[in-house]
Amino acid sequence: MDWNEKYSDMARRLSSSALAELFQLTERPDVISFAGGFPSEDMYLIPEVVEVAREVFHRRGATVLGYGPTPGFSEFREFIAQRQSLLGMKASPDNILVTTGSLQGLDLLGRLFLNPGEVVIVEAPTYLGALTTLAAFDVRLEAVPVDDQGLDVDQLEERLQQLRRRGRPARVLYTIPTFQNPSGLCLSHDRRIRLLELASRYDLIIFEDNAYGELRFEGEELPTLKALDEEGRVVHLGTFSKIFSPGVRLGWLHADAGVIERAVLIKQGVDQCSSSLSQLLCLEFGRRGLLERQIEITRQILRAKATATLRALAEAFPPTTQWTEPQGGFYTWVTLPPNVDTQEALPRCIREARVAYVPGNQFYTDGRGHNQLRLCYSQPSLEEIGDGVRRLGQLLAALPG
Amino acid sequence: MDWNEKYSDMARRLSSSALAELFQLTERPDVISFAGGFPSEDMYLIPEVVEVAREVFHRRGATVLGYGPTPGFSEFREFIAQRQSLLGMKASPDNILVTTGSLQGLDLLGRLFLNPGEVVIVEAPTYLGALTTLAAFDVRLEAVPVDDQGLDVDQLEERLQQLRRRGRPARVLYTIPTFQNPSGLCLSHDRRIRLLELASRYDLIIFEDNAYGELRFEGEELPTLKALDEEGRVVHLGTFSKIFSPGVRLGWLHADAGVIERAVLIKQGVDQCSSSLSQLLCLEFGRRGLLERQIEITRQILRAKATATLRALAEAFPPTTQWTEPQGGFYTWVTLPPNVDTQEALPRCIREARVAYVPGNQFYTDGRGHNQLRLCYSQPSLEEIGDGVRRLGQLLAALPG
Repeated sequence: MDWNEKYSDMARRLSSSALAELFQLTERPDVISFAGGFPSEDMYLIPEVVEVAREVFHRRGATVLGYGPTPGFSEFREFIAQRQSLLGMKASPDNILVTTGSLQGLDLLGRLFLNPGEVVIVEAPTYLGALTTLAAFDVRLEAVPVDDQGLDVDQLEERLQQLRRRGRPARVLYTIPTFQNPSGLCLSHDRRIRLLELASRYDLIIFEDNAYGELRFEGEELPTLKALDEEGRVVHLGTFSKIFSPGVRLGWLHADAGVIERAVLIKQGVDQCSSSLSQLLCLEFGRRGLLERQIEITRQILRAKATATLRALAEAFPPTTQWTEPQGGFYTWVTLPPNVDTQEALPRCIREARVAYVPGNQFYTDGRGHNQLRLCYSQPSLEEIGDGVRRLGQLLAALPG
Repeated sequence: MDWNEKYSDMARRLSSSALAELFQLTERPDVISFAGGFPSEDMYLIPEVVEVAREVFHRRGATVLGYGPTPGFSEFREFIAQRQSLLGMKASPDNILVTTGSLQGLDLLGRLFLNPGEVVIVEAPTYLGALTTLAAFDVRLEAVPVDDQGLDVDQLEERLQQLRRRGRPARVLYTIPTFQNPSGLCLSHDRRIRLLELASRYDLIIFEDNAYGELRFEGEELPTLKALDEEGRVVHLGTFSKIFSPGVRLGWLHADAGVIERAVLIKQGVDQCSSSLSQLLCLEFGRRGLLERQIEITRQILRAKATATLRALAEAFPPTTQWTEPQGGFYTWVTLPPNVDTQEALPRCIREARVAYVPGNQFYTDGRGHNQLRLCYSQPSLEEIGDGVRRLGQLLAALPG
């Protein structure tokens, strides 16, 4: 039977993404991986999780193994709403939907708001997982550049005007305003205000991805877009992947109660409910104050690793190389001399330097970024960071100019 | 901001399904619920799960909390492939994709194979969760009746002919051939052979949902469609929800390796990977032989509960009522005299008789089944079954004729 002729139009459009291969690279023990955006082992509180798991089974019994309600356990939604409120985003449990990771949140939002052909604005560069998720909706992605203050709001305004003039107004903006993936940078406070004004003027819905927002290790806190959002245009995507565990697959949507209600209807047909075990584990972990403890530990580790990464870059990379200086999150974004093609160089980097990263072009919609790369410093040890960046720098410096 | 004008065409079509309300009904402690298709507490092996969880964290450490590969851990895919092979369905790990529950499997298949407007054949009645999932793809559902031998293959052939003649050939058949939801019945062996012949003649893809297949408590085993499938037309959907725990959200797809590869690409954008914690827990539970022990216990409990249910129906229900006699699974399907409207009667049944069920019309695409209902006997205790069926029968018998 020939399956190729059976696929849907959407499935035919798919091409293999870099993400899957990343996972395979990181499985080779002699490779130092700056590729996947994973927490490192020393950020987890494993003995505490084991104790919490024991307690949760003891107290909740069969509830842990049974189905939960589609929107999430009400206690857990309450817990998330309280955390959001503490972070300046007023919320009641009705504003919260528990998702199976924040990527599911984005998928649900796509189903909720996107018709084929519609215009979605993304940052250039942006999170490649989001590009994969959005591609499934057959929308037209318009990329607006980020600079060291985050998304370039002047260029955004120009693009919004153009699009409106052409009769194809943008419907949604997907943004990671804080410790952006892959740039590591933040949208400045002034631009946050300006972005919300533009959203209002051009009737944009904002999907705010806040995966790294709580992981600041330097500088002053910035309010989220959701915290500044007076009109209720911002749908906020949160995740426990970077502050508790990606392996439990838990995130949340924070939005208008009516939007949440409709997202629940979609989730019923998508995976019915998120894991009860994961939810009750994370809830009890949080109630014991362990989320805050893990966040504090993670920040300290990230601070040390970011410092080591930037120092090693300065020592080992070709002199005209530029990189961003993150104040939080997992990433620095490296721009090499134009003769370097990071996608082409990757197999050699892995084979000869035994170092992995994600090539820059993966984060653009149009193949730009050939001389850029993302370094994720969260997972390797301090020693590996020094060695890995050095080996990578030597190999890249030796490439023909 | 008016969100109603913002929704996608798909999201506008959604209407609230019965599933969500079911969860709420079952939360009232004085209501005996025959509604949701849940395992009962005494089917779970909680102390064993706790011990397995402890061991898994001890042996695997941070792997339990980290991201897993999108297709599932290779050891777990191997484990599932071996189980499938033991059940007569030859499989290698390449044929298996771990899903976040089997409903996600169906959602992935929809994305993989269904374009808007295409024809999908379903059974009448069929699993309401599948109807919700399929509805999202804007396909045309054609329902073919089941009788006491399962799907009526003669009517199926007629319908396939008609559809082909009209130039709208059916593309997919979604079927639950064993202990069907909601009828509780099985497709006979002869009809299984005939169904596969028809699929070949009419170039149909079969989605085989086998959620209850391992839960036979009476009669002889039947081969799955996948086991009989010589052309490789059957995509098989499995789940750990009824044999281990629905709360861990784990199912699998078993299909041609090329189909699995493409489903993996879709899953990357949907939830990236299924829970590592759930996978490693279930794997270790299975390796210790505990899945087999839980299945054996579940069968014994279901046998007793089905017997009690059928006995109580005979004693307490109006004399012209009919019901199915399942040899496995969770359900009996009840047909009342035509004057009874089970949807209309449900609020009174809950309020006055304090008994919940799912009204028949929820399982049809066209509102039929007004005098039918599904009784799920898996969750209430034997005593509750007796009381609940009696109270329900009395109330229904007293309805105006």
